[in-house]
Amino acid sequence: MKIQSVTEELSLKRSVDSGTEEQRTAVRQIIEAVRSEKDAAVKRYTKQFDGAELHELRVTQEEIEEAYREFPADMTEIIKEAADNIFAFHEKQLRQTWTYTDDNGTMLGQKMTPLDSAGVYVPGGTAAYPSSVLMNVMPARVAGVERIVMISPPGKDGRLPAGVLVAADIAGVKEIYKAGGAQAIAALAYGTESIRPVDKITGPGNIFVALAKREVFGDVDIDMIAGPSEIAILADESAYPAEVAADLLSQAEHDPRASSVLVTPSRKLAEETAAEVEKQLSSLPREAIARQAVEQYGAIYVTRDLTEAIDVVNQLAPEHLEIMTEQPLTIVEEIRHAGAIFIGRYSSEPVGDYFAGPNHVLPTNGTARFSSPLNVDDFMKKSSLIMYSGQAFEENVDKIAAFARLEGLEAHARAVEIRKQNN
Amino acid sequence: MKIQSVTEELSLKRSVDSGTEEQRTAVRQIIEAVRSEKDAAVKRYTKQFDGAELHELRVTQEEIEEAYREFPADMTEIIKEAADNIFAFHEKQLRQTWTYTDDNGTMLGQKMTPLDSAGVYVPGGTAAYPSSVLMNVMPARVAGVERIVMISPPGKDGRLPAGVLVAADIAGVKEIYKAGGAQAIAALAYGTESIRPVDKITGPGNIFVALAKREVFGDVDIDMIAGPSEIAILADESAYPAEVAADLLSQAEHDPRASSVLVTPSRKLAEETAAEVEKQLSSLPREAIARQAVEQYGAIYVTRDLTEAIDVVNQLAPEHLEIMTEQPLTIVEEIRHAGAIFIGRYSSEPVGDYFAGPNHVLPTNGTARFSSPLNVDDFMKKSSLIMYSGQAFEENVDKIAAFARLEGLEAHARAVEIRKQNN
Repeated sequence: MKIQSVTEELSLKRSVDSGTEEQRTAVRQIIEAVRSEKDAAVKRYTKQFDGAELHELRVTQEEIEEAYREFPADMTEIIKEAADNIFAFHEKQLRQTWTYTDDNGTMLGQKMTPLDSAGVYVPGGTAAYPSSVLMNVMPARVAGVERIVMISPPGKDGRLPAGVLVAADIAGVKEIYKAGGAQAIAALAYGTESIRPVDKITGPGNIFVALAKREVFGDVDIDMIAGPSEIAILADESAYPAEVAADLLSQAEHDPRASSVLVTPSRKLAEETAAEVEKQLSSLPREAIARQAVEQYGAIYVTRDLTEAIDVVNQLAPEHLEIMTEQPLTIVEEIRHAGAIFIGRYSSEPVGDYFAGPNHVLPTNGTARFSSPLNVDDFMKKSSLIMYSGQAFEENVDKIAAFARLEGLEAHARAVEIRKQNN
Repeated sequence: MKIQSVTEELSLKRSVDSGTEEQRTAVRQIIEAVRSEKDAAVKRYTKQFDGAELHELRVTQEEIEEAYREFPADMTEIIKEAADNIFAFHEKQLRQTWTYTDDNGTMLGQKMTPLDSAGVYVPGGTAAYPSSVLMNVMPARVAGVERIVMISPPGKDGRLPAGVLVAADIAGVKEIYKAGGAQAIAALAYGTESIRPVDKITGPGNIFVALAKREVFGDVDIDMIAGPSEIAILADESAYPAEVAADLLSQAEHDPRASSVLVTPSRKLAEETAAEVEKQLSSLPREAIARQAVEQYGAIYVTRDLTEAIDVVNQLAPEHLEIMTEQPLTIVEEIRHAGAIFIGRYSSEPVGDYFAGPNHVLPTNGTARFSSPLNVDDFMKKSSLIMYSGQAFEENVDKIAAFARLEGLEAHARAVEIRKQNN
C-alpha cells in the first residue's frame, strides 16, 4: 500500500455508476411491462434473466422447511443469536408518540406510526448474504411493520439459497417471492396479482436494481443507493499492525472498488501495516479482488498528529471507521462523519458486520456526511399533532390572518376569521 | 362540490410532473455548466432566466437592513413570534447521543451529529413565502447545523423580496445568495467561487428545481419532492359547515391541482358544506384557482359511519388532516397515515401553516404512507457506536468467523481470528 502524507483535499468519493442510457431505457421498459402485465411479465423476465421457469412466485412453506434441513444446524443457531442481538440494539431506537400542552391549553406533538409494509430486496448469486436479510428486516420488525416482504432472484433451478430462506424465516418474514432485477423492484412498488405493493423498498442490488429503485422513488420510499464499501482506520502506535492490516483487507476483499484507508500519526505503524498487508494478501482466497482494491483505492496517510488524523477522517466521512488508539473514546467525540464507529481493538469490523447488533447497512461514498445507518426510524413516520385551544386561537387569530394575507392567501385568512365570527 | 359515497379504492395520487425530455436535458446541461464554469454560469443563467445582471451573488448586510426598513414592522413582529413557536416545537424533537453497556462489557449506541451545512431553496415571484423560509430553516437551526445557506431567484431589479430577507434574518441565516432554478441547485450541490457546497438541499420549487434536486441527489441529500397540496377533513354533525367549507377552500386556493376532501358520515353536513363552498367561493380573490381545484380534485364522501370515514382517511394518506368531531382524540389514535393532524375546531389548517410551531413542509400525494413532516432528524445523522469488550470477543469470535466463512468472506474471518491468536 502507498504511504503518503495528507494533501489538501481528501475524498472517498468514487464516481457512482448511474448506468448507461441503454440500461436506463431497459429498466423503464421492464417497469412498464410489470405495471401492465404484472405476474406474466415478472415470470417472463425471470425466465429470460435468471433462466428459471416459475409457476408460482411465492416461496412455499415446504421450501422453507427444506432450507432448514439443508442448512447447517450450527449456522442456524448462530443466525438466531445474531438476529437477537440485532433486535435488541434496534429496540433501543424505538421512539414513542409524544405530546405536550402549552400554558394556553394548546396540545402539540408527534405521532409515531410504523409503515404498513416494507419490501427487502436480496441479491442472488454470491451476494445472497443471510446477514443482509437480518440487517434489512430487523429494523422493520422492531418498528412494528406488519407486512414484511422479501424478494430475491432464483437460481436456474427455481430455488432460493437455503441460508437466505433460513435467515428470512428467523427474521420473521412471512412473504417471500422469487424475482430479481428491475422486475422485482417494479413488482414491489406497483404490485402484481401475487404480490401486493409495499410502501418502502430496501436492500442492495446490481445496477438494474439501483436504477429501478431510483425510478420508483416517490411512488414508494427507498433506502440510499449504496456505492462500493469502505473503511478508514485511525490508529496510533498502540495498535497491532497485523490486526490493522487484516481489517483493511476484510474491506478490500468485498469489491475491486472497495476502499481501505489507514490514517495514523505513526510512520512505524504505517510501514509495518503496509508490510503486513502484502504478507496477508498473498494467502487470501479473494487475493485478486483485494489486491486491486488496495492498489487502486487503498492508502496509508501519515499525519502530523492525532488532531490531523481526526481531520482526515472527518473529510473522508467513511462508511466504517475503526479507532485503535490508546484513548479511543476521546476521539469518538470529535468524529463528525462516519456510518459506524468501531472503538478499540476488539471491535474489528466483522464484529459489526454480523453479530454485535448495530446495522451493517451504512452510508457509503462520503454520504455519511448526511445519512445514517439503516435504522428503526426508516420504517416509521411521524405525523404532527396540533390541537389548538380556544384561548390560543383568540390570542393569535389576527396574527395568523395577517400572515396569510401577507402571502396573498385570502382564503387562509378567512378560514381562521370565520371561526372568530362564529364564536 | 360532488357528494359521493365511497367506492372501492381511493387515492389522492395525481401524476407527478416528471418533466419533459427537453426539460431533463436542459437541467443536466445547466448543472454541467455550473460545475465547470461556476459563478460565471450562474450569473449567465440568472441574466437569461431572471433578467437580472448581478455582480455579486451574495446578499449584503445593507440589503438586509433595507429589507427591514421596507417591511411592515408589525409583520416583522409576527414573523418573530412564529419563528419562536417553530423553534420551541422543533426543540422537543432533538435527540441526544445514547449508549448502553451489556453485561459482558460491550458498549453500543448511536451518536447524533448535526449536518455541517444545509441549503434552503426559496422560490421567486408570488411563491416567495416568508413562512417557508422559517419552516425550512428552523429544524436545521435546532439540529445545530452550523452553516445554513439560503438561495432564491432575484427579480429583474436584482433584489430579493423584503419579507424573504427579513424571515431569513430572523431565522438566523447568515449566507443568502441570489440565484434560482437548476443553476441554484447545482451551485448548492457542487459549489462555485462564491458559494461553498452544502450537504443537504431543502425547499420547494418549479419543475426545473425539482428535476435538478433529483439529479444531484446522492451527491447531497434532498428533501422529498413535493406535489400539489391536499387536505382531508373528517367531520361529524358537531362541525360547522361554514368552517369546514372555509378550510377546504384555504387548500384549494393554493393551486388548481390542490385537493380538498371532506369525509363525513353526516349527509346533512355534506350538503350544507357543499352549499357553503359554493357561497364562499364566489367572493374569493383566487376564485378561479380554487374553483378549478374543487371541481377537479375536490370531493365530499359520505360514509356509513365514523369507522368507514377513518378507513377512507387512511386510504387517502392526506398531507393535512383536520378532525372536527365530538371526540377527535379517540379518532387520532386510529389514524395511520397523515402528514399533520389538526384536532378540533380551533385547529384550522392556517394555524399550522403559519404559527403553531409544527412544520408546514409535509408529505404530499399519498407519501404520508411512508414519509414525515420536515423535522430535526432530517438535519442530523446517526453514527453507530460499537465498543466490543474482550469478554464478548472471546465468547463470540468463532461464531463471527463462521458466519463470515458462510458468506465466502475469508478475510473477514481472519480479521477476527488474528486477534484471538494475538491474545
